[in-house]
Amino acid sequence: MAGNSFGTLFKLSSFGESHGIAIGGMIDGCPSGLTIDLEAIQHQLDRRKPGQSSITTARKESDAVQFLSGIFEGITIGTPIGFIIPNQDQQSADYSTLKDVYRPSHADYTYEAKYGIRDYRGGGRSSARETACRVVAGAIASQFLDTKHIRISAFVSQVGNIQSEMPNQLPSESQVDASIVRCPDLIASSLMEAHILEVKHAGDTIGGIITCMIEGVPAGLGEPVFDKLHADLGKAMLSINAVKGFEIGSGFSSVTMKGSEHNDNFETDIQGKIKTQTNHSGGIQGGISNGEIIWFKVAFKPVASIAMNQETLNTSLEKTQLKIPGRHDPCVVPRAVPIVEAMAALVIADHFLRAQAINPNISG
Amino acid sequence: MAGNSFGTLFKLSSFGESHGIAIGGMIDGCPSGLTIDLEAIQHQLDRRKPGQSSITTARKESDAVQFLSGIFEGITIGTPIGFIIPNQDQQSADYSTLKDVYRPSHADYTYEAKYGIRDYRGGGRSSARETACRVVAGAIASQFLDTKHIRISAFVSQVGNIQSEMPNQLPSESQVDASIVRCPDLIASSLMEAHILEVKHAGDTIGGIITCMIEGVPAGLGEPVFDKLHADLGKAMLSINAVKGFEIGSGFSSVTMKGSEHNDNFETDIQGKIKTQTNHSGGIQGGISNGEIIWFKVAFKPVASIAMNQETLNTSLEKTQLKIPGRHDPCVVPRAVPIVEAMAALVIADHFLRAQAINPNISG
Amino acid sequence: MAGNSFGTLFKLSSFGESHGIAIGGMIDGCPSGLTIDLEAIQHQLDRRKPGQSSITTARKESDAVQFLSGIFEGITIGTPIGFIIPNQDQQSADYSTLKDVYRPSHADYTYEAKYGIRDYRGGGRSSARETACRVVAGAIASQFLDTKHIRISAFVSQVGNIQSEMPNQLPSESQVDASIVRCPDLIASSLMEAHILEVKHAGDTIGGIITCMIEGVPAGLGEPVFDKLHADLGKAMLSINAVKGFEIGSGFSSVTMKGSEHNDNFETDIQGKIKTQTNHSGGIQGGISNGEIIWFKVAFKPVASIAMNQETLNTSLEKTQLKIPGRHDPCVVPRAVPIVEAMAALVIADHFLRAQAINPNISG
Amino acid sequence: MAGNSFGTLFKLSSFGESHGIAIGGMIDGCPSGLTIDLEAIQHQLDRRKPGQSSITTARKESDAVQFLSGIFEGITIGTPIGFIIPNQDQQSADYSTLKDVYRPSHADYTYEAKYGIRDYRGGGRSSARETACRVVAGAIASQFLDTKHIRISAFVSQVGNIQSEMPNQLPSESQVDASIVRCPDLIASSLMEAHILEVKHAGDTIGGIITCMIEGVPAGLGEPVFDKLHADLGKAMLSINAVKGFEIGSGFSSVTMKGSEHNDNFETDIQGKIKTQTNHSGGIQGGISNGEIIWFKVAFKPVASIAMNQETLNTSLEKTQLKIPGRHDPCVVPRAVPIVEAMAALVIADHFLRAQAINPNISG
Repeated sequence: MAGNSFGTLFKLSSFGESHGIAIGGMIDGCPSGLTIDLEAIQHQLDRRKPGQSSITTARKESDAVQFLSGIFEGITIGTPIGFIIPNQDQQSADYSTLKDVYRPSHADYTYEAKYGIRDYRGGGRSSARETACRVVAGAIASQFLDTKHIRISAFVSQVGNIQSEMPNQLPSESQVDASIVRCPDLIASSLMEAHILEVKHAGDTIGGIITCMIEGVPAGLGEPVFDKLHADLGKAMLSINAVKGFEIGSGFSSVTMKGSEHNDNFETDIQGKIKTQTNHSGGIQGGISNGEIIWFKVAFKPVASIAMNQETLNTSLEKTQLKIPGRHDPCVVPRAVPIVEAMAALVIADHFLRAQAINPNISG
Repeated sequence: MAGNSFGTLFKLSSFGESHGIAIGGMIDGCPSGLTIDLEAIQHQLDRRKPGQSSITTARKESDAVQFLSGIFEGITIGTPIGFIIPNQDQQSADYSTLKDVYRPSHADYTYEAKYGIRDYRGGGRSSARETACRVVAGAIASQFLDTKHIRISAFVSQVGNIQSEMPNQLPSESQVDASIVRCPDLIASSLMEAHILEVKHAGDTIGGIITCMIEGVPAGLGEPVFDKLHADLGKAMLSINAVKGFEIGSGFSSVTMKGSEHNDNFETDIQGKIKTQTNHSGGIQGGISNGEIIWFKVAFKPVASIAMNQETLNTSLEKTQLKIPGRHDPCVVPRAVPIVEAMAALVIADHFLRAQAINPNISG
Repeated sequence: MAGNSFGTLFKLSSFGESHGIAIGGMIDGCPSGLTIDLEAIQHQLDRRKPGQSSITTARKESDAVQFLSGIFEGITIGTPIGFIIPNQDQQSADYSTLKDVYRPSHADYTYEAKYGIRDYRGGGRSSARETACRVVAGAIASQFLDTKHIRISAFVSQVGNIQSEMPNQLPSESQVDASIVRCPDLIASSLMEAHILEVKHAGDTIGGIITCMIEGVPAGLGEPVFDKLHADLGKAMLSINAVKGFEIGSGFSSVTMKGSEHNDNFETDIQGKIKTQTNHSGGIQGGISNGEIIWFKVAFKPVASIAMNQETLNTSLEKTQLKIPGRHDPCVVPRAVPIVEAMAALVIADHFLRAQAINPNISG
Repeated sequence: MAGNSFGTLFKLSSFGESHGIAIGGMIDGCPSGLTIDLEAIQHQLDRRKPGQSSITTARKESDAVQFLSGIFEGITIGTPIGFIIPNQDQQSADYSTLKDVYRPSHADYTYEAKYGIRDYRGGGRSSARETACRVVAGAIASQFLDTKHIRISAFVSQVGNIQSEMPNQLPSESQVDASIVRCPDLIASSLMEAHILEVKHAGDTIGGIITCMIEGVPAGLGEPVFDKLHADLGKAMLSINAVKGFEIGSGFSSVTMKGSEHNDNFETDIQGKIKTQTNHSGGIQGGISNGEIIWFKVAFKPVASIAMNQETLNTSLEKTQLKIPGRHDPCVVPRAVPIVEAMAALVIADHFLRAQAINPNISG
């Protein structure tokens, strides 16, 4: 109820402030008997971690996850999977100057309005550090989905005004990670990288878009009415720090289309299986997956922490100038790719179990 | 869990197929002591109902709500508010030809994939008729929010390529309803109306955008991390039939902005109260309301039911031609305005109670 | 959250006051494809209804359930099953004298303390009339459990000081209903009946115990830690009006036993299947079903509405004398038998789906 | 959904097996601004820990809780309170002989039936070690309730056949802890102690009852229908290891009472405040607190781990003899007193916030 849990049957609950002792959480509802690849989890954490390239923050965090329960001899046993990620590179001194000021477009003021108190060190609970726990849980969800032949791939498709082409099929992780921007269109990627560096040198930041594709989802996932599959995907994405927009399939571009253009007509493939000729629906119709590739886009605003002077107020509501110290990302989307994948995996795993609850043959 | 409930403390649960005996639901968690204006509820239903103008479907439904419990002598008593809306203009004959066919971009196929069975009469549970229950619950939520001086206003801001201007403040309902399109920019509105009629005469349909603004929300609503206020608003909107996209504040346009342009600097107003100079954040920072106007946009695809020949499959997966009978909307956004307002009211009322649970002085 | 829903995957939400227009509710999460026997549902309502014998209240209520959705051509379609039961024999005049008085051991005072307002007509939401909705939902849950070969049987095992013997196996419904007390031990039953009539003639009431047995539950239902199967059964039973106690298996009598007496040693049956030699555990170990018969007891207090003078306070907190008008049950347990069965069915159906969500072979 | 969370607004989620690296959890929804007394929390853990007296297991566990988040400079900040308790005295060797055997009346068989796999070391998740997390969360809930002048006191009232007197008012913790049995009736306590030692020397175990009293609860806590306050208390208690029964107020003894004896007539106290002459209701009427002392009893079975030969089956379903190694409690109730208090505190804190959500003046 206080917003620190996500999912219904496959559920992540997380805790932790950016500069406390540790962040962590528990994954409840993961089916038993799943062999866990710990290195694959750490690999996803490494894709998210700061300091991985010239276009990410220089902060170094090892982000080493420690599992405390729920996995016995390498296999899930059906009990909750507890884990922690110690906070190491805390450098709280960096943040003491922020104790009495409200950073523009950060959560300093709103947390204080809500709780009457806040941990001012680096954003506390509002810091994107919290998303490391999502990556841990999402990596486990992905390993569960692997057993159902469901695969998720996210990648950067826009930075500022620079757009990449939409691929026809899911890029592999190595294709995505071939560039530090995580855009598999290498021409666009190099333009994006140059743009991010330019913005960085100006002490500024820039926004971007991540596209996500999911293949192998059987028809029948998603609940009608309020828990439509794309509504839950949308909430998942909008809950990620800095996200300002979400669209499924044709999204906002559907607005200018006619029904006769937009409708996805049914046909059969060469095996005689039902498919759609186009996929404006984004793989979801009436809130329920139809077996096509699910695809959606997520808009990220420019990071609010900029190395430029800003006018703001202190906590006594007096005018003050602020130049945010610390080491921040000039563009958040490269590091956000594994977070988008993680949240997608949590949603699909949860809806898989929900579908299986009423239909044990769902995966068949 | 099966997706027919929305909200946590202020909760709507709904039931009903488009061509069953009735649709209905219950509102649980509405505070006691609230005087209910039944006419105001019916008025919102009338704004949603078919047949209200030349640009909506010609179907006539009276949509008369009957309250069964929870209101005693005109006042809520804290117990669940049960209600039904009988289905009157059923005309099931219209739909019998659809028994064995999958309409393109409808939920016929996905429901059958999920449940192995479907009520083929007019979409059954997947019909937008279900949204009438949302309007009932939202109208009651709005009456609760009135007592907290929170006001919601939605309106059509785009149809096809025709866009209206963003107003500086919330339009009144009479301003919105001054045109049958429900766009308060009357020049844009008349262009939109002409475009919808043109599309209608071609037997086709067209998409659109609804913008929603909320004023009076105190700072401190919304939960950090997963239940961010805009994440819950996003889910609420994406759960409405035909919605393909959602953006809060600057939304997708933030992608091309720099941090130095996008940040909303704090200042004080003439009463010395904290405010932001701009409102790219859309009234929400770190997932929590900051006291500014909350604003967001919702993208609706063109209605899938078109009066033109379409290629599709029957339930035996054989090719067939389909021309959808019945009377449908050429553009859904005029009738969707009260639905967007209703879902917004449900989200804000729910988060108000959630905030009040831990902070009894939230409204102060 | 406001306490009008029960269950997680198989969920009943109910509404309605005793003297409003109707009570009703919706069952969400019932699997699709289940053939519904409407007469069997009405039969259970008739077992609960007032006026069925000389030892129940003389109030006549037809309790005819009307289904509004979720069942199409006699089969569940996976959407919520909405239903109402109109209130017919309201006789509100009976209750007008109760408007300004707090009946002892009723909910008049506590509802007013909680909500600041109450529907004083016959108890409103606090009336046991609400349990009719439980019986409807439970009857549907039972029909689902029938397909899994799970059978539930409740019966009266004590009235006042008169106890019956514990049967070795589940009595059939016809054995239970052979006496109007619903005690299958016919010698005890006739003593109980005489005792109830004696108490009734004195204008007084008497308590009793219902025992419930469930057979066919596969091993593996129930969640460890907080949602132990018997904890959810206990909550279900304690939520029924007038219930003051619950015990699983050996229950309170286990307190005086030694571990060496109480432990249920494992052995194999003639088919080589694992079983326990005794069943003090009541079919549940560590919160999870072990395949044995689940059995528990539910204690009901004497009905608070007595036809004798009582000292109490009016709503101005002045002393007053009260002799409760209306027609009330001298002993609630005969009519509560189908309610206990209904709540047990809801719990077992819910846990069946929860188990199936993570293990699709649970019923195998 | 997988049963490892408890509560709705004030919620504990816990993880951990008895012989893993650590147990732990998070408390979500604790109001901000609460000063936390860490020593008081550790003190309650010490009351629960093994090895504290001659009548508890000789296992030594330090049970030192480490808080990881949610508390900043000694005060709660509204974010989840994460914590771990490392497992130190693991001695897994003790348990290796149990790998292939089903201990009678333990959860070995049912966990394996449910999950297909189990952590056989000391019970894993089914071990009562998990209750240490409940004590941590309950201690924090108690500190919140202290600010509302609500006080909880549990104590042992029966061991085997030895019963103590019911006190008129809540015993203090020092009165309860004056004896190692935690029975404030010192004559009964010494008889109980002698009985437990006698049973222990025989290698056997014995059951007992804990009574719990709560004072200061304002009228109006608890939700009608399914989430009655005593139903949630009942579930909380029945979820504790070894609990077989729960009764509120008069409980099972109400069965033999007449309505005229059982009803709690209203009167005013010398300040003119409403009260009841008797308290058979146990402080709850219609599921809602009435302002009187809440009192209930919890029945614990004899511990299943006995140092005597038992017949059972191994995991190949072959007969085997078992004498459980390790160090176990001869009677669980002395150590269970702080667990009962903790669960009661969690229920009352949760319902306090639920009441406050709809009525901000609840505590007034």
